[in-house]
Parts: sequence; C-alpha cells; structure tokens
Amino acid sequence: MSEQSPLDLAEGDPFGPHNLPYGVFSTPDAPEHRRVGVRIGDHVLDAGAAAHALGSPYAALLARPTLNPLLAAGRTAWRDVRRALTAWVTVPAHRPDIEPLLHPLDTVTLHLPYEVADYVDFYASEHHATNVGRIFRPDGDALTPNWKHLPIGYHGRSGTIVVSGTDVARPHGQRKAPTDPAPVFGPSVKLDIEAEVGFVVGTPSALGSPVDLASFEDHVFGLFLLNDWSARDIQAWEYVPLGPFLGKSFATSVSAWVTPLEALTAARVAPPERDFPLLPYLDDADAEVPGGFDIRIAVALNGQLVAEPPFAGMYWTAAQQLAHMTVNGASLRTGDVYGSGTVSGPERDQRGSFLELTWNGTEPMELPTGKRTFLEDGDVVTMTAWAPGPDGVRVGLGEVTGRIVES
Amino acid sequence: MSEQSPLDLAEGDPFGPHNLPYGVFSTPDAPEHRRVGVRIGDHVLDAGAAAHALGSPYAALLARPTLNPLLAAGRTAWRDVRRALTAWVTVPAHRPDIEPLLHPLDTVTLHLPYEVADYVDFYASEHHATNVGRIFRPDGDALTPNWKHLPIGYHGRSGTIVVSGTDVARPHGQRKAPTDPAPVFGPSVKLDIEAEVGFVVGTPSALGSPVDLASFEDHVFGLFLLNDWSARDIQAWEYVPLGPFLGKSFATSVSAWVTPLEALTAARVAPPERDFPLLPYLDDADAEVPGGFDIRIAVALNGQLVAEPPFAGMYWTAAQQLAHMTVNGASLRTGDVYGSGTVSGPERDQRGSFLELTWNGTEPMELPTGKRTFLEDGDVVTMTAWAPGPDGVRVGLGEVTGRIVES
Repeated sequence: MSEQSPLDLAEGDPFGPHNLPYGVFSTPDAPEHRRVGVRIGDHVLDAGAAAHALGSPYAALLARPTLNPLLAAGRTAWRDVRRALTAWVTVPAHRPDIEPLLHPLDTVTLHLPYEVADYVDFYASEHHATNVGRIFRPDGDALTPNWKHLPIGYHGRSGTIVVSGTDVARPHGQRKAPTDPAPVFGPSVKLDIEAEVGFVVGTPSALGSPVDLASFEDHVFGLFLLNDWSARDIQAWEYVPLGPFLGKSFATSVSAWVTPLEALTAARVAPPERDFPLLPYLDDADAEVPGGFDIRIAVALNGQLVAEPPFAGMYWTAAQQLAHMTVNGASLRTGDVYGSGTVSGPERDQRGSFLELTWNGTEPMELPTGKRTFLEDGDVVTMTAWAPGPDGVRVGLGEVTGRIVES
Repeated sequence: MSEQSPLDLAEGDPFGPHNLPYGVFSTPDAPEHRRVGVRIGDHVLDAGAAAHALGSPYAALLARPTLNPLLAAGRTAWRDVRRALTAWVTVPAHRPDIEPLLHPLDTVTLHLPYEVADYVDFYASEHHATNVGRIFRPDGDALTPNWKHLPIGYHGRSGTIVVSGTDVARPHGQRKAPTDPAPVFGPSVKLDIEAEVGFVVGTPSALGSPVDLASFEDHVFGLFLLNDWSARDIQAWEYVPLGPFLGKSFATSVSAWVTPLEALTAARVAPPERDFPLLPYLDDADAEVPGGFDIRIAVALNGQLVAEPPFAGMYWTAAQQLAHMTVNGASLRTGDVYGSGTVSGPERDQRGSFLELTWNGTEPMELPTGKRTFLEDGDVVTMTAWAPGPDGVRVGLGEVTGRIVES
C-alpha cells in the first residue's frame, strides 16, 4: 500500500518548496507550546523539531514561540535556514525524518508570528491617495503638495495588531457630519478595510544611522498581507490636524504567514515612473534590484470577490519607505512592522477599500446578496494574494481574514 | 564620631519619604546589573536588595532590570510596595539594613526605567494648540472644530524613547518653505523642544474593553517629565494629511524617575471650565478625584530659565486621555506611555516650546548670552518640576535633560 506523502504536492502548488513562509503554531495537545512552523502545501512543518532531528545548528532559533529570534539573526542566517528547509522538504532521504513533523494546516492553531515593536503605516498608492483626497477634501487638491516628494506615513498602534482569524469588534467613537451641530457617540457606521502589504524588520539599526535604499534586504525579512481596519466616520472627525488615531487603533489584522523576501525574487518589478525628481536618499532610478513587488491581491466579502488591487503599481516602494523612516536617525528594532498603505489600482475594481469602492457609501457595490456600502456585523473579509515565482509557479501569500462582531 | 546618614534629609527636601520615585540604575562595578532604585534625597536605594534584606515578599519584583514587572503587578502591589519603602526609609530600626544599600546619585548610571510598549502623544493645552494653530495655519481657525470635543492625539515612535541625559543628534530631513520651488534636504534648522508630562501604564486592559474615567488610577502607575523633541521644519512639510512623523520620531527624552500617582494626592486639581458639553465617556464633572495635577515645570536652556509652563491648566486630563484612547476598544499594555502634549500657559513665559516662545523664530528670546530662536548644536535643555505634596512639602519630579549634537 502506498499512501501519498504531504510532500508530494500538486504541480504549481503556490505553497511549494519555492515559497516556504514562516509562522508560529501550536497543536491541540499542547496549546501553550508555540513554535516556528513552515508551510508546505496544506501542512505545517515543525521547523525546530525538524532542525533538531536533522542536527541543524538552527534548532534553538526555530524552537521558539515567536519569529523574533530568527528575525534578529540577520540575513546570512535567513539564507542558511531557508537553504536547509528547502533541502529538508525536497531531498527524498530526509522524508522519514520530516514527514512525522508535518501537521495538517486545519489541525493547528496559528498565532501572531512576531512580537511587534513599532508599527508604521504608509500611504503609497497614488490611486488610493487621490481617491481619498477627493472624498475627504473635495474642495482642495486631491494630493497634498508633499505627496510625490516623500512617502507619507504615520505611526499606528502596535498593541492591537492581531493575527488573521481574530474577530474584530466594531469600534465605538465620536463622529460628526458637517451638518451635525455636535458630535455623537456610538458604534462606527462606516467600518472599512484597507488592503495592504506589510513588512517586518529583522535586523535592527542604531539610533542616528539612516538605512539607505540598498540596505533594504539586509534589514527586512519578509512580507505579508495586512488589513488596516478603519472606521471612516471616526477618522474623518478626529484626523485634523494630527492624523488618524482611534479610527485605526482598534485592530490591524496580519496574515499568520510571513513570506521571506528571498521567495519573491522573481516578483520584483520597477515602480511607476516618478513625476518629480527625488531627493538622493529616495532616488532608486539606479537600483540594482527593482523596488516593486508584483503582488496580486484579491479581496472577498463573505466569499464574494469585490476587488483585485495590484501591488506592482505602488508609487513608493518598501525600500523607499524604510529609507525615509530612518533618514532622521530613527532606529529600527527587530519586529518593527510597516504597512504599504492601501493598495488601489486605476480601475474601479482594483480599489483596496470600501471607502473607494463605494465612493464613501454614495455608490453602493452591487453584490449577488444585495447592495453594500460599509461593513455590517457578521461580515467576513478575506484577502488572498500571489506573486510570480520561479519557472512560472505562483508564490502564494498567506490569507488575512477577519469577521466583524458587534461590540 | 557621628556621620550624618543619607536618610537625614533637610527639612522640605523634595525627594523625601513623601515622594519615593522609581528608576532603574546600575553601578560602575557591575554596569550590566540593572535593578530598581528608589530615590531618597540625593541617594538611590537598591530596592530589591532592601526588600531581600528585610524579608519583603516583593524582593523578586524589585530586583529586575526594568520597572515592568512592578508595573504589571497592579495597584494593590504598588500600594504595598510603597508602604514598605516608606517604612524602610523612615523607621530608625531599619537603618543598619538600609544605609549600606544607598548609592549616591552621582555615582550611579540611570537607565530607561521601563520597556515602552505603545507611545501616544496628546495635544491637550489650549494655549499651546491655539499658538500652534495661529503659527501653522494663519488663514484658518486656531483650534480645529474637534479640539474641544475630544483629546486629540497620535501614536509616536516607542523605539526612540530615550532616558534623560542621552545626547540628541540633530535630525536630517526634507523641508520646504512655501516659497521654495521644491523641498531641500539637510539638518533641521528649526529644532525644538516640547515640555510635557508623561504617564506610564501598569495594569493592562483587554482588547474590546474601554477603560473608563474612574479607572485611571487602576491602570496608570505614575508620571514623569517628557521632552518631545521636534523638528519644526520637517514637521511643517510632512504633517498634512496624516500627522507628525519624522519631525518627532528621532528622539523623545523621558526622566529616569517615575513618580507614583500616590505621591501626588495633594497635587490633584480641577481642570479648567470646559466650554462645550462633553460626551459621557469624557465628562468628569462629577469625578471623585479632580483630574488635573498642579505640576510647575521649569525649562532651562544652557542653565538659563526660559519658561515655566503650568500643568494645572491643561484642558484635557490624563484620565480623559486614557478613556479616549481606549473607547474604541483598543487595549492597554504594561509599559504603554502617553504624553500630555506640550504644556503652555496663557503668559508668554509659560510657553513650553521654542516655536511658541519665539513665534516660529520671528521674535527671538533675549537671553544674557544673546538672541536665540531654535536649538543650536551643543545646547543643553533641562526640564525640572515640582508639585505640592503633603503638609506643604514639595514633591520633586526627576529632571529630563538632553544635549543637541551634530549628526
């Protein structure tokens, strides 16, 4: 009798050995025992146990409850660990050791894979920023004068970053329509998503030492899908002059899987032409590796596809964001997370927020289940994505999903 | 021969047994051995060693490299530890045990006393917000329409909070005067301070559970002076529409000493009359304990007094800020820090920033050493403060100081 091995993946499986994203998992028999897992197909490899079984020097780094020790180990370690993992899941001689350490994905619990240090959210899609500007500031220019000179960003709340699958309680707060005499308090009536790609920093940097464009891959370990839940009514009333605060800080969902940058070499693309000359610290015209990533995102509301935002078209790249974030001497810590900003393309069905998809609720989406503007209690939003991999195989990004619950 | 004991303090010493602020220190013989210290006069008591010597159950909590375990222990533990410390430094029978554990302040190194989780900065002085509005938005209303309805705040960078005494490198960044054709890059030419009071959270809260006004003392352990260094030229160019970012994120200095709220009972004062009715979650009209703190701050530039900002006049209180920060369900973590926002009073010499003191550089300060607008390399800014204590004795707040260095 021959049973198929979990390592015998279908051709073109987006979670094949060319991908190998990292997460943190536990099993029902030991729910407190969190450790690093690596996804292969529909299974999770207990990476620390595999390293131990195969005598790898990285066993101690992988048998940990978060990815932070691996993140802090630096680029050489990232490359070595990835090379070892690739061998473990592809070399037939390792199968007897590896197969018992594979857990079906639907039997494990996935946890927030890293301890977040600081969290910064950017605003890097020209289409998104233009749409939002038109909606929120109809009397002004859509883009502020600084927008094409620097990647605009702001700090968000690290402590409310939650792993995919966590329910999101509808936030309460103040809102005030221009015609209201005074603000009112209650549950947000304009609860929204923002489809983003997040990046996590591994290698820290020293206070006072900017990280230049070319050092991006030395500091950033990988990327993942991120949903920056947003309460538009709360945000609109609070955000002038110091920016978004409670309209964002109630929850930010991230995928349980971090895709290492090394898996995305084939997905690198040049960013769009820039309309203005960039200051030297942001000028990537001569970059050895193109700064963009060709990631195709799909956003589903209750299982229904509502948007396909293209990440390749982002005006500002992740390397530029990192260079900007540190150019004033601000230091990086292992576990710093930053979001790209909402990914929106030029087409209507490429917009990464319901604010844009419904033009602030004035143009409802026509779904098979009826007209929809913002999120209702019980709604489930799921984002998935893929990027081109080697030899035409797709690299799957782990999904990020969340359900809205009454609070 | 009778030598005076470090515990025989001069009458009215602002760091007497009525104060007992907490910090983290090390000594030159063991620079890696960080542990909790309590300031008494000009000495630091090794709190963990004292607890051990006297058989206190809190020895393990105090012999730690940060205050976080004590912060996380909660209000009952805070009260018990403070009661024990008070006895140790006042009951004569304890002197033989305690005196050997006192280190002269000028022989120890003081460290950042807590690990910072999230950092939020508010904007709670009406005088400051009005001044800044007039300077930055001369064509609009000085206060935005939301200002008197909610305590405006934003998240800052936790990773660049540094302890008093740390040099501050002048940040580089983009700036653009309205008349410039394009932004230029270079060292900030408008480097400034913001005199603030910071608060540190001890007891965490659950995601989805707002912390109401009455629970302030259950969650917040203590307060301290904070200098929110600001590069006004960088800030002015970047901050629309998402708020301050690189103009602030290069450094925030905090005092090495955290004054427990329990030491400030006599300093509680009612905040100013509010001009608009407040929504119930912010309405403190019937608060049992008045929300304000009568803290008198002094700001010195190179030893010269330049401002005396009065904290008692802040429009929004720390309890209101905490209630607002969590009303959307955002959770608190041990080590969350929040700043009051720049403290400015109605008088010119009560303004807590050079931006205001010099009206954005157009009205230089006349100092004995010459005219001054913003900070120059080599400048040292030192803030000190005190508050009324029991029986007319002052409660001293630990200073926060920093020197500007070329970068």
